[in-house]
This record gives sequence, structure tokens and C-alpha cells, in this order.
Amino acid sequence: MTEALRITMIGGGSSYIPDIAEMIISRKDELPVKEWVLMDIDEERLQAAGGFAAQMIAEAGLNTDVILTTDLNKAVAKSDFVVTCFRVGGSAARVMDESIPFKHGLIGQETNGPGGMVMAMRQIPAILEIAHAIEKFASPDCWLINLANPAGILTEAVYRHSQIKAAGLCNGPTVLREAVLKVHQVSDEDVFIKTVGLNHLHWSKVYVHGKDVTDETAPLLNEWIRRNIPALDFMPEEIEALSPGWLVSAAHYARFYYLTPECTQQLRNKGEVNWPKALHMLIQKFPNVFNEKDREGVTTRADMVRLLEKKTMRLYKENNYDGFQIMRLTRGGHGYGEAGLRLIDGIANNRNNIQVVDVPNRGSISTLDRDVITEVPCLVNRTGVYALPMDELAPHAISFVKSVKAYEMLTIEAAMTGSYRTALEALMTNPLVPSFMQAKGALDELLLVNEAYLPQFLPVIEKLRNGMDPLKA
Amino acid sequence: MTEALRITMIGGGSSYIPDIAEMIISRKDELPVKEWVLMDIDEERLQAAGGFAAQMIAEAGLNTDVILTTDLNKAVAKSDFVVTCFRVGGSAARVMDESIPFKHGLIGQETNGPGGMVMAMRQIPAILEIAHAIEKFASPDCWLINLANPAGILTEAVYRHSQIKAAGLCNGPTVLREAVLKVHQVSDEDVFIKTVGLNHLHWSKVYVHGKDVTDETAPLLNEWIRRNIPALDFMPEEIEALSPGWLVSAAHYARFYYLTPECTQQLRNKGEVNWPKALHMLIQKFPNVFNEKDREGVTTRADMVRLLEKKTMRLYKENNYDGFQIMRLTRGGHGYGEAGLRLIDGIANNRNNIQVVDVPNRGSISTLDRDVITEVPCLVNRTGVYALPMDELAPHAISFVKSVKAYEMLTIEAAMTGSYRTALEALMTNPLVPSFMQAKGALDELLLVNEAYLPQFLPVIEKLRNGMDPLKA
Amino acid sequence: MTEALRITMIGGGSSYIPDIAEMIISRKDELPVKEWVLMDIDEERLQAAGGFAAQMIAEAGLNTDVILTTDLNKAVAKSDFVVTCFRVGGSAARVMDESIPFKHGLIGQETNGPGGMVMAMRQIPAILEIAHAIEKFASPDCWLINLANPAGILTEAVYRHSQIKAAGLCNGPTVLREAVLKVHQVSDEDVFIKTVGLNHLHWSKVYVHGKDVTDETAPLLNEWIRRNIPALDFMPEEIEALSPGWLVSAAHYARFYYLTPECTQQLRNKGEVNWPKALHMLIQKFPNVFNEKDREGVTTRADMVRLLEKKTMRLYKENNYDGFQIMRLTRGGHGYGEAGLRLIDGIANNRNNIQVVDVPNRGSISTLDRDVITEVPCLVNRTGVYALPMDELAPHAISFVKSVKAYEMLTIEAAMTGSYRTALEALMTNPLVPSFMQAKGALDELLLVNEAYLPQFLPVIEKLRNGMDPLKA
Amino acid sequence: MTEALRITMIGGGSSYIPDIAEMIISRKDELPVKEWVLMDIDEERLQAAGGFAAQMIAEAGLNTDVILTTDLNKAVAKSDFVVTCFRVGGSAARVMDESIPFKHGLIGQETNGPGGMVMAMRQIPAILEIAHAIEKFASPDCWLINLANPAGILTEAVYRHSQIKAAGLCNGPTVLREAVLKVHQVSDEDVFIKTVGLNHLHWSKVYVHGKDVTDETAPLLNEWIRRNIPALDFMPEEIEALSPGWLVSAAHYARFYYLTPECTQQLRNKGEVNWPKALHMLIQKFPNVFNEKDREGVTTRADMVRLLEKKTMRLYKENNYDGFQIMRLTRGGHGYGEAGLRLIDGIANNRNNIQVVDVPNRGSISTLDRDVITEVPCLVNRTGVYALPMDELAPHAISFVKSVKAYEMLTIEAAMTGSYRTALEALMTNPLVPSFMQAKGALDELLLVNEAYLPQFLPVIEKLRNGMDPLKA
Repeated sequence: MTEALRITMIGGGSSYIPDIAEMIISRKDELPVKEWVLMDIDEERLQAAGGFAAQMIAEAGLNTDVILTTDLNKAVAKSDFVVTCFRVGGSAARVMDESIPFKHGLIGQETNGPGGMVMAMRQIPAILEIAHAIEKFASPDCWLINLANPAGILTEAVYRHSQIKAAGLCNGPTVLREAVLKVHQVSDEDVFIKTVGLNHLHWSKVYVHGKDVTDETAPLLNEWIRRNIPALDFMPEEIEALSPGWLVSAAHYARFYYLTPECTQQLRNKGEVNWPKALHMLIQKFPNVFNEKDREGVTTRADMVRLLEKKTMRLYKENNYDGFQIMRLTRGGHGYGEAGLRLIDGIANNRNNIQVVDVPNRGSISTLDRDVITEVPCLVNRTGVYALPMDELAPHAISFVKSVKAYEMLTIEAAMTGSYRTALEALMTNPLVPSFMQAKGALDELLLVNEAYLPQFLPVIEKLRNGMDPLKA
Repeated sequence: MTEALRITMIGGGSSYIPDIAEMIISRKDELPVKEWVLMDIDEERLQAAGGFAAQMIAEAGLNTDVILTTDLNKAVAKSDFVVTCFRVGGSAARVMDESIPFKHGLIGQETNGPGGMVMAMRQIPAILEIAHAIEKFASPDCWLINLANPAGILTEAVYRHSQIKAAGLCNGPTVLREAVLKVHQVSDEDVFIKTVGLNHLHWSKVYVHGKDVTDETAPLLNEWIRRNIPALDFMPEEIEALSPGWLVSAAHYARFYYLTPECTQQLRNKGEVNWPKALHMLIQKFPNVFNEKDREGVTTRADMVRLLEKKTMRLYKENNYDGFQIMRLTRGGHGYGEAGLRLIDGIANNRNNIQVVDVPNRGSISTLDRDVITEVPCLVNRTGVYALPMDELAPHAISFVKSVKAYEMLTIEAAMTGSYRTALEALMTNPLVPSFMQAKGALDELLLVNEAYLPQFLPVIEKLRNGMDPLKA
Repeated sequence: MTEALRITMIGGGSSYIPDIAEMIISRKDELPVKEWVLMDIDEERLQAAGGFAAQMIAEAGLNTDVILTTDLNKAVAKSDFVVTCFRVGGSAARVMDESIPFKHGLIGQETNGPGGMVMAMRQIPAILEIAHAIEKFASPDCWLINLANPAGILTEAVYRHSQIKAAGLCNGPTVLREAVLKVHQVSDEDVFIKTVGLNHLHWSKVYVHGKDVTDETAPLLNEWIRRNIPALDFMPEEIEALSPGWLVSAAHYARFYYLTPECTQQLRNKGEVNWPKALHMLIQKFPNVFNEKDREGVTTRADMVRLLEKKTMRLYKENNYDGFQIMRLTRGGHGYGEAGLRLIDGIANNRNNIQVVDVPNRGSISTLDRDVITEVPCLVNRTGVYALPMDELAPHAISFVKSVKAYEMLTIEAAMTGSYRTALEALMTNPLVPSFMQAKGALDELLLVNEAYLPQFLPVIEKLRNGMDPLKA
Repeated sequence: MTEALRITMIGGGSSYIPDIAEMIISRKDELPVKEWVLMDIDEERLQAAGGFAAQMIAEAGLNTDVILTTDLNKAVAKSDFVVTCFRVGGSAARVMDESIPFKHGLIGQETNGPGGMVMAMRQIPAILEIAHAIEKFASPDCWLINLANPAGILTEAVYRHSQIKAAGLCNGPTVLREAVLKVHQVSDEDVFIKTVGLNHLHWSKVYVHGKDVTDETAPLLNEWIRRNIPALDFMPEEIEALSPGWLVSAAHYARFYYLTPECTQQLRNKGEVNWPKALHMLIQKFPNVFNEKDREGVTTRADMVRLLEKKTMRLYKENNYDGFQIMRLTRGGHGYGEAGLRLIDGIANNRNNIQVVDVPNRGSISTLDRDVITEVPCLVNRTGVYALPMDELAPHAISFVKSVKAYEMLTIEAAMTGSYRTALEALMTNPLVPSFMQAKGALDELLLVNEAYLPQFLPVIEKLRNGMDPLKA
């Protein structure tokens, strides 16, 4: 077993932190944590969420120091693992990412399309600041484990612009794995899942005891998605017929690429979640926390997220476990903590097990470059994370993957250079964006409202404000 | 100089044939043609257009045998060059290609989008029949020079499924070259044009005496397009700002990829050409041929094409040169004959000159596979056609090119196998098709109306007719 | 656990068979074998070695049917695993492979250089006959596990010319693994070894508990080689300085590439093993089997091998375990049985463990093609064998690997076509062959003496016999 | 026609300079040179050779300023073309390059093997100094045209370590082209030659009027080599049978790779040229310049070269055209001046003709990387030099080419870093070097005698001098 670890969370004031505390507690014997450092720039949230997490750790009798700090360099110093889960601009910026594209006929979503691109451009400088702090201050073997979105692009940016070891994670593969374990009533080592693609755009084959059970598994997974994202009218069975042998494993994202105009219409009309219904459930379950008056201010998903944040943070402050329950029930983030801790365990304990991780491709997907980040099954041990060679996707799927990867690369370049033209090229490369005029309209408006978070684009924003076209010299 | 040649035209009843006759006449000294074979399955058109062409040749005093035949094998026997310009299904099928996609929200165009895909699936078996006849009966050094559309896909199909030498041609590069010669008042050997991409999707740099004059040339070319395709509201200057250093050289096609919804809207409303205006001009110019009554049946482009075909064929039959003038003025095919004869001259006369041709890439575009067909500048001599290594396109452009090339490959596979799933995958890979539902709707309807020309799809069409989904086993 | 298996050995009369019997016995609980089929074309050896192996199985109380047969199709019928260990031409052909090249100034060795090439050309038709029998008669999930030499080339031939699942194995990686376990006193799951290259040409990095212990391990491994191949004057330390971070893991083969003229001189003078000393040891240890008179006929390695074969086969016939001991002590084949059974166990029991296997590269060595066979660490489970992405070798090492892989491909092509020119091209590509004249001299003589085993070269051999140069038409 | 040019020669004191003067004179109408700058670090030779060349130019009535200078920056300032023909260390260093390798069993030759590697390491820093001067001071469109040896490696170094436009040239392709023109009695535009490979390692196909005449041409070319390099016993016909369809176009170098031990033996015994015979011819032809006493000091090629240098320089000083005649007759450099001026003409006059040049591969040889330097036919015009896509070489030939290219890359890296290990890796990668021990022996001795020219290796040389092994830390 490994020696006790120092693990740092960036975004230590996130409402997901108690979830991770629970994971640490449940693995306390096999993965002892000596120091758990929670870092956040928002001191109030840090004290609320972090304080509650520390309380959980203490109550569980762990011998772990929980350290709260707002200083990045101190937080990462001597760390063995730095886990990132932050969102520059918070939920206010998310509202813009999700709403402005609709005005221009495009999909409004936080990780895909123009909203996702602008979010990436806010996040990339932040994660590179963290990566450079790790280069200077962390343990030389330190791994950055990125949970922040868009997870694939951020991991790609870290590999392009720093020298550290990094891996990105999404809860999607964890959700799939847990569903398979449950449905087929088997244990972890009996299951082998080939998940192939990019973050939020992948297809999978599922094996139990070495036998292919993909076709039996697909309907169960689709059922899960329908139950969890009820507002969507989505028939993955038809789409899956295009990729025989595979299931569409991140179907709630994949549908954007298969049904762009239909999804744009649906999301614009209803949003991703049925909020009134969700709020009704909360009022029933937690009458001390929610009541009918809470309905008043809630019309959009963003309103709902803000309400939930306010309530859970208050409960965290009071060390009330209801906050934790509410977060779990409502935020869809389940699986992130599990994925993060499982990866740390795989590396630190030299497990030689298989996990689906965002790392350099290295031949896993034969038609992509060797050094780009893909989301694929990897062998994980203390010497590294090794992408396994995977089966060929259906031709249309590999074409989607290549276009999206080209978009990701251009997004990173735009984020690093502040080039307006590169940002527009990124959007033109994105399969969700069919029109230069729509792309330009959405980009211009998003840049203007993100001025505070995109210093690299200030000269461009200045031109836009003055009615000039930044494409002209 | 080369010995006298045998040149065969497949589609010898095409209304463009007199145009090619004129090219042969104008090159009679440097490129003597011993036998000019015109082959067509439509005997009436063959006699009309071919008979008129023979008359032109005779009047010019050439010592060329003009041979009319409906027998493919005899037509290609011992030929040095076989030139293809045919359209399976004729203008009736074209009407369907151009109209059905609109019903499903997609662009309706004869070479791009779902219409172009179905046209390709009609044409591929035909061109492969020709290629196999060449393998068996033609001169061992025979070249197939393909002018039929979609030119890039057909040339690709010939390379994938036969062993002959082949090259595809489009009038686009000829139009650009002639515009440059005229505007800059220089001769052919002073101009070097880097045209890079695929058929109907390319960008160019223009050099005169080795000096880059791209920026001065772009507005002149755009002006030409605006004059010739007046119904379109299209601003290439803005799009060109995305590719600094390049002009968008097939802009009337490229716009589909940059402005998919806008172009769909425009084409649905107006078609590509202002027909009433064009007809008015014809009535003024050729009062013996056209009159006001002709306006009655003409509402769509297809109607106009049918009217023109009827009138020119009748004039050809009467050996009336007006037919030739009318064809030149109206059919937009100018440049095809010039391109075809120039390539024959380059090969037969060992010219070592540079021509833009559809041939295997062989490293010309570094990011595409070596063996796929691209439209790029080539060194042409008697030993072959050699693609020159070209500059990198802008990143978004190369992403377009890769997606379209993937679409082309799937289209060929679908045409060869009759696989419904592959045809749908082709459409999902095409950047002009944003929705699986739209793709399926358009494909199903197009297959049903093309039953006579798509024997490879008969089992699929049978299922569709019975209301079954061909995606299900 | 897996259901009971049917395992077939081709070369069931090999003197190594009792070694494999012991492996089956030691794994009887975790890897129950229902039927063990031993097939050989030499009935006498089959009865001797196979009969003794059956006796071992019976004495150990296993419920395994041991089936002896000379019929290939029956042997592979319904098998789950077919293991190949045969040598076309036997030890007589080996004598030629090892001696003729020396006459022409080249290295004489059974797996490398001209001797190895001719051996490969004898073996390839045989292994393909087996592969095609598997295609027809074996279980659809059957794996061919090849232990026959040259192991990499034969596995490559199977992948190029059949559709079955196949993996090649060498005892080298097993020897290295066992040395590491012993020296560092750790268990299997604590060790991770990156072995990178081709069969008989690879470099390794060794990790214990995730820590790099390559530098400490190298001298221990070199010591092992010196003890086991005493006649060679070889200093791997100097050579290893060319590849910092790596040890030369098949050093007794690698030295050929680093020290071609020196090794040629050494092998010609002394052979690989000090035979008088080895025989002396056997007389001491097994006085009932060997005596001083046996020395008389033994001057070369080939003589010694023949003496050992005769003695062990006689002892096997008598069910005398001394034969087994003598084989183990003298034949250097230790590790093959262990490697073969470990791979069967990994697949059948869905182990998800790491083994060094000859399988398609799939990106493991970034500078080699995806589909060529390499010898690298693989994840092994019931769904397949997955090559892991490996570190870059030193530049000179990758150059060796590429040349040798080119040689292997040409050897396979020559074996399939009987082309004399291709065989000469193979030799010119082999880094051990510095001269066209030497290559031609050795090849011509080897072809003449191998007439019985190289029917594909009969027309060439006919020309050689008549003093004609097969390079001339 | 182009405006008048400024052309700079680096190595302006070379005995080849009058040859180039004659080329300038013969092209005076189509390629007017305004300023011809001769730069050399050896003032005496510069005045002798340069002064004579200026006299030639003046006598021919050209309006060209001939400028002699020892200042590099001034020499390249505002130049349109910089032509390099220099040898760091002069003929004294060449003696070492050619003799030391033999002592260690390796080939001793100025451009191939260990001697060529050390020469490259002396030359690379010099040519990069020139390239950087061009970056700073020359015309922005300036081309570096490198005639210095080893021409391919130096051009590769310029592309790896500077931003300028560069092309390397060898006289080999010129000799081949002139032989073809003469033998087939055709003019330049009727001939197309596919020369494919690297500098001093290539194969060719020859076409006249588009017809393949390779087989008829090969014997004529081989005859030329035999006449000009009489001491060599070399039978290219046999070797050419390994590459059907190709001739071995730099056979006097290619033979090293096909017949390494044989060539080593021949060169060690006799050198490349029969010097006594050559000297006898000179005494007959130029009795005022040479006499029997000159024989005394001449035993090796190096002695002969030094004698010729002394005599021609004296004659140049006296403006005696005999010096020019003697140089032409004896030095084998014919074709360099022609190749250099032809390339300048092709670029400056926008010729769009085909020339064989060392430039980036860009897909010309499909199995090599896109950015490495190859020697292949190129389209030459004012916008650049474009490598044409070429046919596949025979498999053994491409294996040679890849190994030699790997060697070239490592040589450049060693020259830039002064890494002893990289230099040894380069030699181990070179197909002419079969032994680590031989490589080390030759390298150590060559480094010691080249101390004055290899400052980057000073720490290594210091260790060697102290009897330490530089491979050990």
C-alpha cells in the first residue's frame, strides 16, 4: 500500500466537496490521506463547504488534516494529487453561455457549442495557472486530475502548455460502469468497457466475463438517461443503428451532433430539466428547507441552480447533512468524486486496473493524432496511465470526433492568443454551428458579456464595443 | 508533336459537344485528332448534337473522322483519351435532386448535399462501366478524362475500383485562370495559381510573374460570380477574412458550407439563377428562336433547362449556329471543353505545364491521405499528372475538406454496396446535413423516386415502399 | 473461472512437451484442461514425448484426456487454443542454417541473418497450413499461440495471411520477469516491465512497486546471460550506455546488431555454447545416461543437440524423469511452457494482467506501422490482447527495429511468392548483411540444400543448379 | 525577364570559381548579374581565384561588378542568391576523413561513413552562420543555394535551424542529364528524369519524349562512371537487377551500401582515382606547368589534390587559362556551376522547369517524413521549388534511404549539441558501420585530430585525451 498522501482540491468551495469527503472516508483503509487541502478564491463558500467536509472527516474518525486556504501556491505545495473542480465566472457566466447562443439560432449549452467555447476560454488560463504552480511547488510526481468542464479541452490545454502529468475525468463512464455492475449483478473486475471518443462524445462496447453484452445494455442506459433528463424527446435506438456493435454512451451530449436543429428547439423551449417537478419533489422531501414560496423566482435552469446553491451552502454552514442529500439528488454531479478517487487509488496503489480517462491518445484511436487527448480505457498504475488500443468507430462517428477535436484545438489556440479569427474558425469547425453569420453574432455578444473573464480578448472587445469588425485589420 | 489521336466522348449527345468541336478546331495544328468518336445512349440527341459537331469539323477543313455510335465498347476501342460528360437520369432526375431536399429542411443542389449524393450513386456504376471497358478495349496508355459531375467523387470511384489512368476536371479553375489572364493582361506562362482543396470546395492563391496578386484578384473574381449567379446574396469578402492569403475560389459552392441555413433559404426561394431575366435576354437576342410564349411553362430552373435543351437540340439538328451561341450564353458550362482539351494537349504533347486537375493527392495536401482525389495544381506531361505540394489551408478550411472527403468516400461505398446505413452515414458526415431526421427523410424520398437508376438499392427501396425502416435488420 | 478447455500442441513430439505437462499440472485448479491434444508428423517422437507427458498427467491425478494424433485437422477441431512448437527440417536443417552463412563471411545463426531467413521460409507455409485448419475446424474464438521460431516473423505471417487470432511468445521476457521477481524478492503484481521492440531485438525498463529499478537490474540480467552463454565475449554495459534508461533485454541477440563482425568471428570459432564442458557436467550428473564415449561424435552444437535428442527421447519412452531433467538443464527452452500457459490463463480466465506478447503494434511503438507485429507489454483478457503504448526507444535502436521489420516483411513476401529477388532484397535490408555478394553466395547455397522444404523456390533452385543467375529473366 | 541580380559566393577562393564565371558569361543575356560577390576567409586564394574570375568577366564584356571580400555580413547584404561552396579544414582535414576510418576497419570517404560525419560536424556550424547572416542582411526573398558537401545534410541543417529558403545541389543529376541529352540527341525539354532518394543515394528512371528509356540509358551511365573512377571494380548491372525499372544513378556512392566490405577493401588499396596515370596525362598536356619532379611527393589522393591546388592557384594569379583547364580536367566538380546557375535561372526567370534539387520532401517519397530533405525532381519557379510526387523505390532501397536519413538527423543533432553519445548513435545507424567497437575507435581518433574545428566537442575531446570514456557520466 502507498504511503499517506497529500491531496489538494482546487474549487474547494464547490458544493460537490462533501461528496468527495464521503469518498475519502469510504476508502480510508486502502487510500489513507494525510493532508486534504481545500483551496478556493471564494472564502465564504470555502468555509461553508470545506468546513462541513472537515466535520464529516472528523466524525468518521480519520487521521486526516483538512486545510482550507485561498493561496494557490501554498495549496499545491508538495501535493501528490491536485484535483480541479472550478468554474470561472460561476453560475452567472453559465447563464450567458446557455442563453445567448439561442438568440442567434444556435444551441445554448454549457459545454458544447458557442457557450462551451467561451467557457473553455475562461477556464484555460485558470487551469494553466494551476499547472504552472504544480510545476514549481508540487511533488515532482504530482498528477493533476481535472474534473472541471469542458474536461477534455482543459486537459488538452494542460498537455499543450505545461510539462506536468494530467488526466481528465467525466462522470459519464462512471455512470455507465455503475449501471452495468448493477444490472448484470457482477463485480468490477468482471466488466470490461470499451469507451471510445472524446469527452462528451463517445461510443461504448460492454463486456461481462469477456462476453459482449452491449446490445442488452444499451436500452438500460437509455432508460437511465430518459429518467434523468426527462424533458428531452430523444430516441437513441435509431441513432445507435448507425453504429452497429456500439451504444451511444454519452447520448445526452451525442444527440446534439445527430439532431442539431431538433435539440436546439427542445432546449430553447424547455431547458434540460423539468424544474417545477424537481422543486415539487424537494418541497415534499425537505419541508424544512424548501417551501412553496421558493417557486416564485425560479423560471430557468440557472435560477434553479442559484436557489440550490444558496440553500445547500446555508445547510453546509450549519453542518446539516440535508445539504449533502439535496446536492446529490439534484446536481447530476454524482460520479465525479468516485471517478477522481478511483483514479488516485489506481495510481497511488499501483492497481494495474482499467479506467476511462482523458489522456493522450497514443494510438488508441487509430485515426487521431498520437498526442491529442481522447477519452478511452487506460491501464492505470504508479508508472502512468496508458491508453489501450481500441476498435474502429463507425465512419460517421470518427468524422464527428475529428471535427470536434479540430474545434477543441482551435479553441485552445484562441484562448491562448486572444485571436478573434481563430475563435471564429473554431466555431466554423464545430459541427453544431452551420453558419458564419450565426457564429459571428453569438461570438460577438458572448465576448462582450465576458469582458471580465477574457483579458486576452480586450482589444477585440474594444473594437466590438466601437462597432468595428475585428476581422478587418 | 504527338501522332494523331483517337478521342472518345461519352455523352456525345450532350449540348456541350459543339463547344468541344470548336476547341478541337482551334487546336488543330498542335493537337491533330484522327478520330473523334461520339457515343451516347440517346440516339436522337447523338444525331442532333453530334451531327452538328461533325458539320463544324468538316466546315473547318479538318481531316478528322467524326464517328457516332451507341456502343460503348466500340467507342472506347483503341482510344487514346476517353472524355466523359453524361448525367444518368438526365434533367428529370436533376429536378428531383434539386427539389426534394428542401422539403426536409436541407439544401437542394445537384452536386452538394443529399441531391448530389444520390446523383453520385446514379453516376458511379455508369463511370465504372466505362472504366472497365477502357481496361479491356482502349489503348494501354489511355486516359479517362472525366467532366461529369460530381467530378471529384466520380474520379475517386474510378481510382478505387479500376486500374486505369484518370483525371477529373471542373470549369472552376479554368474560369479563374481566364479571369486572371484577362484582368492582369498577361499570358499563360506568367501565371501560377495555387488552387487547393476538393472539387467544388477550394481556395486559391494567385501569382503573376511570381508575385502574389491574390488580394487584388479576389474582388474581380467575386464580381464575376455576382454577375453570373445574380440571385444570390453572398459576401465572400467576409468569409475570405477567415483564410488570410487565400481567395475562396469556388465561392458559389463554398458558401453552402459557410452559410448553410442562409443558402438553403435563398435557393429555396429563388433558385440559383434569375430565369425570367435570362429568358428576356434570349428573346431580345434570338427572336427567331424564343418568344414571349416560352415564358409560360417556365417557373423553376429545371423548366428553364428543359426549354433550353429542346431549343438547342432543334437548332443543332438544323446545323444552326444559334444553338451553339445559346448554349454558351446560358448553360454555365463554359470552360469544360477548354479544360478537357488543354489536359489532352498537356499529356499528348508532353507539355510539362501546370494544370489544376482532380488526381490522387500524393502529399499535395499534407493533412489528407496520399491516395485520395484532390483538386490541385499538377505538372502534366506524357509520363503522367503529378500533384504539386501545396501550402496549408486555414484550419477551418482543412476541417471542411476532411469532412467532405469522408462524405465522398462513404458515398462511393454506398453506391457500390447499396447499403442504406452507409448512405445515411455519408449524409451525417456531410457538413451540410445537421440532422439525422432530416437526412433520413430526404434520403428515403430520393431513393423512392430514383428506383430506375439505383438497382443496387432495390431491396432497400422495397422496404421503404412497405413502410419498413431499412436500418432495422 | 473458465470452463474446461481443449488445448492442442502442434509439435507434440517435441522434447519440450513434458515441460508443458508440468505447467498444466501446476495450474490444474485455475486452468482445468479437459482435452490436451498432441499432434506431430513424427509418430515415433510423438509416442515417446507425448506418451511420457500423458503419464505425468495421469500420475498427477488430472482429469485430462491426453490425445496423440498425426492428423492436423482432427487435432485442431474444436480447440480453444492451438500452441505451435515445431521446426520444419528438424535439427538437420538447423545445422545448415548455422554453418553455411559463415562460409560467405556472414553470421550463422538459427533465427538471425541468412540462416534465420531460410528457416522462416521453411516455417511460414507450415504455420499458415495450421492457421487455415484453425479457420475451418477450431472453436470460433480459438487463439493460435506460436512458440515456434522465428516467433515474430511467423506471427506476422499469420496476421498477413489468415483471419485468426494469434499471439507469438518468446522465453526472453519470461526469463527477465523471473529474474526480476527473484532478485527483488517481489511478487508478480508488483512488477511492471516495459519491453519494447521485436522478437529477439528489444530493450526494457523495469519497475518494482512503480519505481524504476532498470539500472540495478541490468547487471544482474547480464550476469545471467554470461553464465548461460559462456562462450561469448560480450560487454552489454558499453552498449547500454547508448540507450540511457533502458537495458538491452535480449542481449545475446542484440549483440549481433551492435557487433556484427565481432560476433561473426566469435560464433564461427566457438559456437554459442561450450559443449565439452556441458557434456562433462552431464556425465557427472547422469552416469547411467551419459558416458565418456558420447564425447566422440560431438564437435559442433548440432552434434550435441542430436545426442541430447536421442538420449531424452529414449528416456521419455521409458517414462524416465531423467529425460525431463536433462532437457531442462541443456536446451535453453525454459520459459516457453510458462509463457504459453500464462497467456492461455490470462485469456481464458479474463485476468486483465500484463504480458509481453508478439501482437499487432496498434500504436505501441509510435514510429512503426499500426498493423505490424511487435513484442511489447499487453493487457490480456478474454476479449483480446491489447498492446500498451510504450516510451520512445533511443534513435539508433528504432533505426535497428525499422530495418529488421522491413527485413521480416520481405522475408514473408519471399516465402509466399518464392521470389529470389525478394529474398535477396530481404537480406540487403537485414543490418547483419553488409554485402550483396556475400548475401547472394549464402542464399544460393542455402536454397540448394533446402530443396526438400522450399517447394515455392523450385524454379529458382533449378536455375541455380544449372549455373544460371535467377536475377536475370 | 528578371531584373539584374546580386549573387554571392561563399568560398569565393575555391578553385571552381572560374567554372562559375564561365557559366555566368554564357547566360549573360537571360540572367544578367549586376553584382557578383566573392567571399572567402582565405584572402590569398580569394585574390587568386576571384581575381582571375573577375578578369574572365571583364574580358567577356559583361557589365557585372565583381566584388571580393572577407566579410560575411557585407557579402550577403542585399543578395538575391547566396551560393555556398566551402570546406572547413580544407584538404588537410579531408586527408584525415579519408584515412582514419580505414584503421578501424571502416570505409574512409569524404562524404560517407565516419569521415563524412565528421566533415558534416565541421561544416554545419559554418553554414548556419551563413544562414543567420542571410536572415539578417540579405534580400527577404534570398535563396541559399548550397553546393558544399555533404550537400543533403547541410541543407537539412539549414531547414532545421533557420528560417531561410534553401536548396542543395549535387553534380550527379547534372551529369546524368547531360549524358542523356548527348546519348539520345535530344534537347532539355524532351527529357524527364525521376531521380529519387537522398544526396549520394538515389535511383532514377529516364524518359525521352515521355517514353521510358531507363534500360537503354543505364549501361551508358555505368560506362561513364567506369571511365571516370577507373580504380573501382564495380558491376552495377547486378545491383540494378534488385531494383527493376530503375538505374542506380549515383552508383559510385550507392556501391558503398551494396558492397560495404568490398568497397572498403578497394578504397584502402587504391583510392578512388589512379593518380600516377592522371599525373602522367597532365605532364603531357601542360608541360609548362607539370614535370616529372612533381611525381615525387604524390602518393595519395590528398597529395595529388594539394599539388593541383598549388598549381592552379598560381596559374589563376597569373590569369593563365591553363589553370582553368587543369581544374576542369582533374577535379570532378564539373556540373556544380551548371547546376547552381540553372537553379538561379529557374527561380529568377520564373521558368516553371524541372530540376533535381535537395529540398523538403513534402510527400515526394511517400515513406519519408514530409519535412526532411530529399533529392528529387522539383518544379522551379519564382514562387518556390516544389518536389514532385515520385514512384515507390524498391523495398530494399527505401530501407537504405530511411537508415541514411536517420543517420543524417542524428549527425545534425550531434553537430548542434556536441553530444558524443548522439555521434555514436549516428554511426550505429549508418548502414556502412557494422560495429560499435569500430565506430567508437574511428570516432575517437577523428575527434582528436579535428579539435580545431569542433569547438562544440571540446569537453568530449578533453575526456578522450585523458583516456576517459565519454559515454560514462
